[in-house]
Amino acid sequence: MERIVSLGARSYPLYIERGALRCLSPRVNLARKVLLVTDEGVPESLRTLVLSQCGQGFLEVLPMGEDSKSFSACERLCARMLRENFTRKDLVLALGGGVIGDLAGFAASIYMRGIDFVNLPTTTLSQIDSSVGGKTAINFCGVKNIVGAFHQPRAVFLDADALASLPERHFVNGLAEALKMGLICDPEILALFEKEDWRSHVEEIITRAVLAKADVVEADETEQGERKCLNFGHTIGHGIEAAGGLHGLLHGECVALGLLYFLEDEALKSRTLAILRRLGLPTRADVDPEKVFAALTHDKKGDATGVSVVVVDRPGHYLFRKMTYDELRARVFAGVDVP
Amino acid sequence: MERIVSLGARSYPLYIERGALRCLSPRVNLARKVLLVTDEGVPESLRTLVLSQCGQGFLEVLPMGEDSKSFSACERLCARMLRENFTRKDLVLALGGGVIGDLAGFAASIYMRGIDFVNLPTTTLSQIDSSVGGKTAINFCGVKNIVGAFHQPRAVFLDADALASLPERHFVNGLAEALKMGLICDPEILALFEKEDWRSHVEEIITRAVLAKADVVEADETEQGERKCLNFGHTIGHGIEAAGGLHGLLHGECVALGLLYFLEDEALKSRTLAILRRLGLPTRADVDPEKVFAALTHDKKGDATGVSVVVVDRPGHYLFRKMTYDELRARVFAGVDVP
Repeated sequence: MERIVSLGARSYPLYIERGALRCLSPRVNLARKVLLVTDEGVPESLRTLVLSQCGQGFLEVLPMGEDSKSFSACERLCARMLRENFTRKDLVLALGGGVIGDLAGFAASIYMRGIDFVNLPTTTLSQIDSSVGGKTAINFCGVKNIVGAFHQPRAVFLDADALASLPERHFVNGLAEALKMGLICDPEILALFEKEDWRSHVEEIITRAVLAKADVVEADETEQGERKCLNFGHTIGHGIEAAGGLHGLLHGECVALGLLYFLEDEALKSRTLAILRRLGLPTRADVDPEKVFAALTHDKKGDATGVSVVVVDRPGHYLFRKMTYDELRARVFAGVDVP
Repeated sequence: MERIVSLGARSYPLYIERGALRCLSPRVNLARKVLLVTDEGVPESLRTLVLSQCGQGFLEVLPMGEDSKSFSACERLCARMLRENFTRKDLVLALGGGVIGDLAGFAASIYMRGIDFVNLPTTTLSQIDSSVGGKTAINFCGVKNIVGAFHQPRAVFLDADALASLPERHFVNGLAEALKMGLICDPEILALFEKEDWRSHVEEIITRAVLAKADVVEADETEQGERKCLNFGHTIGHGIEAAGGLHGLLHGECVALGLLYFLEDEALKSRTLAILRRLGLPTRADVDPEKVFAALTHDKKGDATGVSVVVVDRPGHYLFRKMTYDELRARVFAGVDVP
């Protein structure tokens, strides 16, 4: 299927179909210079599949992991484009997870003040969440996504085949963001997760989640208001992620935990816990709450008086609540009451 | 006077008046964290004037010159904002010439994906040209402005008092951009330069030039088409600038020379030469044409088949012309026929 994300002059299509990566052209003009950015974790067969479609393709393979979201990696991509004489009319393709999309998108946004960027996400996390919405970013001074730009892609291709070799833990990790979309916007996603044969409904889950996200982005492109609902689960989730350090939990796993702190309906919390267990996502974090709180006060969403958090009070319905740091601290220390 | 630059949600006022820097508030909200970015060449009295108006002001003083338009200077500004816990609601003020405005504007555009930026230009060059239009940039791998963003300021203050201590050579340097605006858009500027007492008309010249620039920017914010007329004089000008190296001519001086190559009317060329001589701007460059041509082919405006250049055929009227590299080379080597 094709869904246009409507953002005026910055509108772009989402192509959601198996095998979409096999025929990028004519949906994308590949008859120009193309920088294909990927990482060592992406199967070589996918790389080759994409590169073979480019007339003048140039490949940059980065190390896996958050460390590649850095100024130096961004400089490396810009230097490569400069060396290959990329002009404003050329293209950056991101093939990988959120790290690659965020980094390549940011480089595309600043090279010559912005060139075309197309996103080919290869993880559940990036297909559901980061590939749509135009947020690009790098990390800096230990703070996640603190430097970046809003730079909408020209197109995004969600190809279920690209997920084939994703390890189980990473596959499930991304589904936490779909669960989040279910909780804030689309209860049908919860119902799909609750089916015995939920695995055979994963494409439907991903599709529903990304379409719900597109709706949110269209209504508030640069996160002035309602788009902040997407931060549901992320306030404490980011704190857990930062406190855990490099060898801690994955992003989706932290979001899964983060959701639980702000579910204000006991029945919904039980349903959510049952889904987390069924998926094999964690329901308890082994991190020092003091560290979690310290990390989240460094988060960019707060100001002097407190933090705006998203709470869910019934399936598919959220509200914003301003919380003082004391209240938030109390909530972090109370932890999640897992029955 | 106040002129709104109309760019939809990104509209902002230009305040053009003597003493404007003395009362920034309430035109700008200074009741928040403010990073004042300036350089060693800006008089301390100006710095103090601005800083004293900020409740929570933080000062970054950079070395003078193009070397400050770098990734590392940008990282320095972002790190300072992070250390001082700047949020999305805080402000970057640029006090200086084009280097400071371009750098501080770029840092403001990427910190947290964009925070407020107000420009206080203190040179004729930045008042006339770089402070209006939202182009921000740094240099990279020896190429000028190759990395950057479109990030409109929230306000620009053009205060003639801020020019008081500008050395004569720099004062005149910036007027080359006003001469450019006269040639492409507003012949009245040429008439003002031709008055015996042109120096007493400098504020009027600056005002007319910046208003003409605002018109162009409004019509084509991100340089898809007509805005390219502002590149008049810059194609070969940039080449001369790059070929001259660090101790060569100033930017405006190079633009002044660059104009002469693309004036296609002999009478207008004579008038322009007379104005350059009156201002004390150069009419002849002492640089190797081979180096100039090599440098300009590295310029980001070209593609494989040639370069689009701006020519002026009568006062206040320009046209675009596609030129092959061979034609351009011939023009560089022919030089300017100065009577």
